[in-house]
Amino acid sequence: MKFEVTILGCSSATPVFNRNPTAQLLNCNEKPYLIDCGEGTQQQLIKFNLKAAKIDHIFISHLHGDHYFGLIGLLSSLHLNGRIKPIHIYGPEPIKEILEMQFKYSDTTLKYELIYHFTDCNASKIILENNDLVVETIVLNHRIPCTGFKFTEKKRLRKLLNSKLEEDQIPVEYFPLLKRGVDLTLPNGNVLLNADYTTDSAVPKSYAYCSDTLYDERYFDKIKNCDTLYHEATFLHDMLDRANETHHTTALQAAQIASQVGAKKLIIGHYSSRYKTLIELLEEAKTVFENTQLAIEGNTYQI
Amino acid sequence: MKFEVTILGCSSATPVFNRNPTAQLLNCNEKPYLIDCGEGTQQQLIKFNLKAAKIDHIFISHLHGDHYFGLIGLLSSLHLNGRIKPIHIYGPEPIKEILEMQFKYSDTTLKYELIYHFTDCNASKIILENNDLVVETIVLNHRIPCTGFKFTEKKRLRKLLNSKLEEDQIPVEYFPLLKRGVDLTLPNGNVLLNADYTTDSAVPKSYAYCSDTLYDERYFDKIKNCDTLYHEATFLHDMLDRANETHHTTALQAAQIASQVGAKKLIIGHYSSRYKTLIELLEEAKTVFENTQLAIEGNTYQI
Repeated sequence: MKFEVTILGCSSATPVFNRNPTAQLLNCNEKPYLIDCGEGTQQQLIKFNLKAAKIDHIFISHLHGDHYFGLIGLLSSLHLNGRIKPIHIYGPEPIKEILEMQFKYSDTTLKYELIYHFTDCNASKIILENNDLVVETIVLNHRIPCTGFKFTEKKRLRKLLNSKLEEDQIPVEYFPLLKRGVDLTLPNGNVLLNADYTTDSAVPKSYAYCSDTLYDERYFDKIKNCDTLYHEATFLHDMLDRANETHHTTALQAAQIASQVGAKKLIIGHYSSRYKTLIELLEEAKTVFENTQLAIEGNTYQI
Repeated sequence: MKFEVTILGCSSATPVFNRNPTAQLLNCNEKPYLIDCGEGTQQQLIKFNLKAAKIDHIFISHLHGDHYFGLIGLLSSLHLNGRIKPIHIYGPEPIKEILEMQFKYSDTTLKYELIYHFTDCNASKIILENNDLVVETIVLNHRIPCTGFKFTEKKRLRKLLNSKLEEDQIPVEYFPLLKRGVDLTLPNGNVLLNADYTTDSAVPKSYAYCSDTLYDERYFDKIKNCDTLYHEATFLHDMLDRANETHHTTALQAAQIASQVGAKKLIIGHYSSRYKTLIELLEEAKTVFENTQLAIEGNTYQI
């Protein structure tokens, strides 16, 4: 099953040349989930040939503009392009008022429904569960209410051992229950032991998205053992004071967090516009956590 | 004196690959004036190496998102980049409420002042006058309140005929008054006739910006004899019904308007996303008005 994330924007606060404000597109089993939506996200989707029309779920971490100013434009374009399928929006409550005011003054009545799921910045909660994944909020520590999001794959069905099934001439009608791990006792008394015909599926993976936040151990438990951790790394560690003041994280801290929570892979992003090149941020993180990658726009990362 | 306009966005409604929503940067005597501000305008300014920090005046025609969704991001970035100089915003009154709500929820107190000048969609008015130009609104006919803007250069000082001034050894102290067209009677009774020492300056030029609007003769008087007319041309004329329904103009109509008002040059833009190439729009307009050009992003047009 596909479980990967494409970076649409990796800049913090203000865009710089070739670095847009934050947005990511998670692909879970060929369904796209949009995480944050900075200005220009719809143009980035076009640029990378990703279909905005397929997005049904949009997650907004907080109401700093570099994380949501592109939302109104994306929703407007979907409307103008004839969308009728609802969209679920997960984010802080005022997002509704902000969107509705702008639709009012443009005299726009959306042809599709917006279904809001307001996030609680005080308590982690499951905000979405479907056949493919579970999404929980992560309570972050920023200047305004802010949550991250943890995406965990659902446990998959067991894998059939086709050669063994053929050898014993097991009818296909039995396959669905075997996939579900059931042992079958046939009318003649024979028992088909599930373990003989299937193997366990891949272990479900998880993706934790943490932007923007101060280094704060209270959320570490929620992202423990995640397969891929995206963590903001706005500054190099020599700017720790500035990071603390603005409630952001340094590259070194992001790496320490990845190490501390037992993440398998770390992606850093949300770079301050002061960094013309990013190699120093990467190198700093790697001193603590070797399996670190830079979030680069247009790149797709397997989780 | 420099009087030119750079196209930052030429798309209507929704962006398409390489065509952003509407925005233009007028340069009058090295001072930039931003006209409309669709999503991604700040990124376009970066791309074309134009300094957002130098903009003091922003004109918003109306509150359809493709003309203003980039404003909040641009203003936020200027704030984050340390701006303290006020910005004048000319546009429909609700723009204030929309901006203020978003600043409130992001807990942003701008370090500079926003000075609002609300446009009246019922009557054309002078909304800005300084040493370089006069800006008037143009009452357009769109689905929601909408004005265009006419930018007219101020009459320049007369040009000095330097060789004649040298020949007659005229002191430099006399130059400022000569530039202003004054005849001077000297203490010895000699008269310096202005016409002997100066020539007329270039005739002031005007730029009329008309987007979005139905073809409506009521505004033609206001754009009469303009040097450069930017007029929206959302559709080809075979889609006239759709143009009328959505209160837009066809390329043919834009050319008819240019011809009817005696414009010297026409720039068309605000293309529907349905047009993958633009040559047909240009050719259609040229059948009526030869001196037509396509608005192309990054291109600068002398007025």
